[in-house]
Amino acid sequence: MSTVNSLLAAISDEGRDAKRGGYSRPVYSSAEITLREWFVAEAAARGLEVSTDANGIIWAWWDLPGSARDSDSRRGALVTGSHLDSVPGGGAFDGPLGVASALAAFDVLAAREASGDLQRNRALALTVFPEEEGSRFGVACLGSRLLTGAIDPAKALSLRDAQGNTFADVAAANGLDPALMGRDEATLALIGDFIELHVEQGRGLNTEEFTDAAGRGPAVAIGSSILGHGRWRLSFSGQGNHAGTTLMIDRADPMVAAAQLVVKVREVARLQADARATVGRLEPVPGGTNVIASRVDLWLDVRHPDDAVTAMLVEKIHGQAQKIAAFEGCSVALTEESLSGTVNFDPALTRALEKSVHRLVPGAPLLPTGAGHDAGVLAAEVPSGMIYVRNPSGISHSPEEYVEHDDADAGVAALADVLEDLL
Amino acid sequence: MSTVNSLLAAISDEGRDAKRGGYSRPVYSSAEITLREWFVAEAAARGLEVSTDANGIIWAWWDLPGSARDSDSRRGALVTGSHLDSVPGGGAFDGPLGVASALAAFDVLAAREASGDLQRNRALALTVFPEEEGSRFGVACLGSRLLTGAIDPAKALSLRDAQGNTFADVAAANGLDPALMGRDEATLALIGDFIELHVEQGRGLNTEEFTDAAGRGPAVAIGSSILGHGRWRLSFSGQGNHAGTTLMIDRADPMVAAAQLVVKVREVARLQADARATVGRLEPVPGGTNVIASRVDLWLDVRHPDDAVTAMLVEKIHGQAQKIAAFEGCSVALTEESLSGTVNFDPALTRALEKSVHRLVPGAPLLPTGAGHDAGVLAAEVPSGMIYVRNPSGISHSPEEYVEHDDADAGVAALADVLEDLL
Repeated sequence: MSTVNSLLAAISDEGRDAKRGGYSRPVYSSAEITLREWFVAEAAARGLEVSTDANGIIWAWWDLPGSARDSDSRRGALVTGSHLDSVPGGGAFDGPLGVASALAAFDVLAAREASGDLQRNRALALTVFPEEEGSRFGVACLGSRLLTGAIDPAKALSLRDAQGNTFADVAAANGLDPALMGRDEATLALIGDFIELHVEQGRGLNTEEFTDAAGRGPAVAIGSSILGHGRWRLSFSGQGNHAGTTLMIDRADPMVAAAQLVVKVREVARLQADARATVGRLEPVPGGTNVIASRVDLWLDVRHPDDAVTAMLVEKIHGQAQKIAAFEGCSVALTEESLSGTVNFDPALTRALEKSVHRLVPGAPLLPTGAGHDAGVLAAEVPSGMIYVRNPSGISHSPEEYVEHDDADAGVAALADVLEDLL
Repeated sequence: MSTVNSLLAAISDEGRDAKRGGYSRPVYSSAEITLREWFVAEAAARGLEVSTDANGIIWAWWDLPGSARDSDSRRGALVTGSHLDSVPGGGAFDGPLGVASALAAFDVLAAREASGDLQRNRALALTVFPEEEGSRFGVACLGSRLLTGAIDPAKALSLRDAQGNTFADVAAANGLDPALMGRDEATLALIGDFIELHVEQGRGLNTEEFTDAAGRGPAVAIGSSILGHGRWRLSFSGQGNHAGTTLMIDRADPMVAAAQLVVKVREVARLQADARATVGRLEPVPGGTNVIASRVDLWLDVRHPDDAVTAMLVEKIHGQAQKIAAFEGCSVALTEESLSGTVNFDPALTRALEKSVHRLVPGAPLLPTGAGHDAGVLAAEVPSGMIYVRNPSGISHSPEEYVEHDDADAGVAALADVLEDLL
C-alpha cells in the first residue's frame, strides 16, 4: 500500500462509533488525542521538529538545511495540513486525509531533495488544527479562528460541550494555558502560504461536465471559494405537561412548533437558488415519551455564496419561527452561534495551484464548496488554497464518505508538486 | 407542618434537575435509590416489616395484632402505595405524594387503633413500585406489569436505558435476581384490594362543573377509569450527508420527514374526539449541526378511551408516516413499545371509595384520567381504585406540577377514612 493509504489504515480503528457507524472523534476526546499522538510520532520519525502552539495547533517543521530553526528562519513558510477531529458518526477521510497526505507529500519531497531534484527557498510546516468540525464546542474551525482572532478568546473559552465542560477547562486539561489563547501574531507571521488538501464533500467532481466516458471524474480539483456559512440556535418554549392528561386544545407544544419550522426551513432554502439550509440537531427538553416538551432547541445551518442572501434567509426563517410560535402559544429565541462570510481563495495562489496540478491531472477543475475549512478562515490573513480529492459517492459527514486508493495517491502527487513549486 | 407535607419536604432536595428544572429520578438512579431508602427508614420507624419482592416492589406490612406475619396471615390484605421514580424534569408530587400519603394515613390509623377507634379484619401494606414512568427503560408501570405478567419477563430484562444498560443488569446490580422476575402468584394473592392516591394530572378538578364561587375545585376526586395508552417508536431512515455540500434537491433528509409527521400526529389527534397524541422525544442520528441526519427516531404516545380507536389512530399515523417517508426518499419502521387497554376501576370498590370520601369532601367527583398508573395494571388482577388530589394548575410531568398543603392533608384524611372502612 502507498504511504498515504498505509497511514490512514494505521488509524482506521481509532474512534469508531458502534452506535452511529463511522467515526466519532471529537476534539480532545481519547480518540482525537490518540490521533494527535500518532501524528506527532509520524512527524518525529521523519525528523521534523514538532510543537503545539498556544491555541492547540500542532506544527511539524521541515527547516531549511543549516537553518537556525527559530521564528526568523521560519517566517513566511509554506504550510500544509488539516484536522483530525470528526463530526459524530463521520467518515474516515474528512480531516485525516489532508494530514496523512501532508506526511506522504513530505516523503516525496524529502526523496527529491536527497536525490538533488529539489531546491528549497523556505521552510515547510505540516499542521493539525483542533475542533475544525465544531462538533464538541459548537464553533467550527475553532483553532484557526483563535489563531487569527476571528473569535473573541473569552467567548471561545466559555463555550461548553454537551457534558457542560467549558472549552477553557478542556484546553487546560490538555496542557494549554487559557490565558494565552487568542490571536497570535508571531505564529501568523510564520505562514507565507497555506494549502489544505481535503476530501471533496459533494458531487462536484462527479458531474457530467467533468466525467469521462466511463463516468469517472478527475482525481483532484482546486478550490475556488467556500460558501458563506452560519449556525443559529432556535429555542421554542411552550408549556411542558403530561401527555395523557392534557387535552389537545389545551396545549402549547414547542415540538409541534419546531416541527413546522423544520419543514419551513427546507421550503425557504428550496426557493432560493444555491442556498442550503439544514436542521440536523434537535433536542426536546425534557425529552420524555409521555411528556409534552417544555422547550425544543434546534440548530440551523444556512449557507449561500452571497452573504446578504444568507442574512436574508435567516431573517425569513426567524420571521416564520415567530409566526409559528405565536400561533402555537409558544415563544422563540434566535441565537447566532457562528457566521463566516463567503471566502474566495487568493487568485494568484489559486492560479499557481492550477498550473502545478494540471501537469499531472490536466482535467482538474476549479470547484467551489459548501463546506467550511480552516483554509477559509486563514484566507482572511494569508494567501490560502485548497486541493480536493474525488469522493465517488459525493457523501460526507457520514460513514459512507469514501476515497479510492488511486485517488488518494493522485492527491499526494498533486500536493507534492504544488509544494515543490511553492518552496 | 402536617406529616405528609413534612415527609415531602424531607425529600425535596433529592434528584433535582439543574438543567430541566424540577426532578429527574429515574428508577435505580442514585436519587431514586435514596428515596427508596428513605421510605424503608420511614416504614421501619413506624414498626412496619419491610421487604422487597422479586420484581423490586417494596412492601411495608402492618400485620394484625398477634398475626403469624406470614403469607397466610397476610393473604387478601388491603394495599396502598405509589412510586418514587419521575419523568425527566418532573414535578415533586407525581409518585411521592401517594407514598408519603400512605405513610401519613398509616399514622392516622395507628393513632385511631391506639385509642380503640379502629377495628381491623385484615393486614395493611404500603408499597412502592419501580419504574412507573418508564423514563429509564421505556415501559411504564414496569414493576406492576412484571408482578402481574402483563409483560414477558424476557422482554423486560432485555430493555435498555439510554446508556445501553439492560434492565437485567441494572436489576441485578440492585440486588434482584433476574431469573426470579415475572408473574408472582404468591405476592398477587396477598393483595385483596389496591388503592393508589395520586396527584391529579389534568384540569379535571378545576372545571366549572366542580368549582365553587371562588373558582376552587374540591380537594380530592375518585378515579373512574384510565384511558387506553400506548407507546410506539417510529424510525425514519434517510441519507446522512454534509449539510454544506449536499444540494437541497439531492437530499433524503429523515428530519424533514419526521417533522412532517409530528405536525400530522397533532392533526390526526385533533380530528378524533377524546384522543391525545404526543411526540415528546425525538432523536436525530448522528445529531450534528452541520450534518444531514441519517436517521431520526421519534416516540409516539397515543391515548383514547376506546382501544379500537387507539389502534385506528396509530394505523392512520403509520400510514401517513409511510406516505411521507416515500415522498422524501426515506423509509420508516414502526415498533410498538407498550400498549394498555382502557381500564374501568372495580365498580363495587369505586362505590365504597365514594362513600368514604364523601363524608369529608361531599363534592368529590368521579374522574377519568389520561395518565397511566400501577393501579390500572393491577386492576386486571385485583379490585383497584384511585384517589386524586387537586392540582391547581392542571400541569404535571413538569416542574410546575403543584399541590397545596391543605389539599395534601385532605388527601391523607380521605385515604385514612377509605382504608379504615376497608380494613
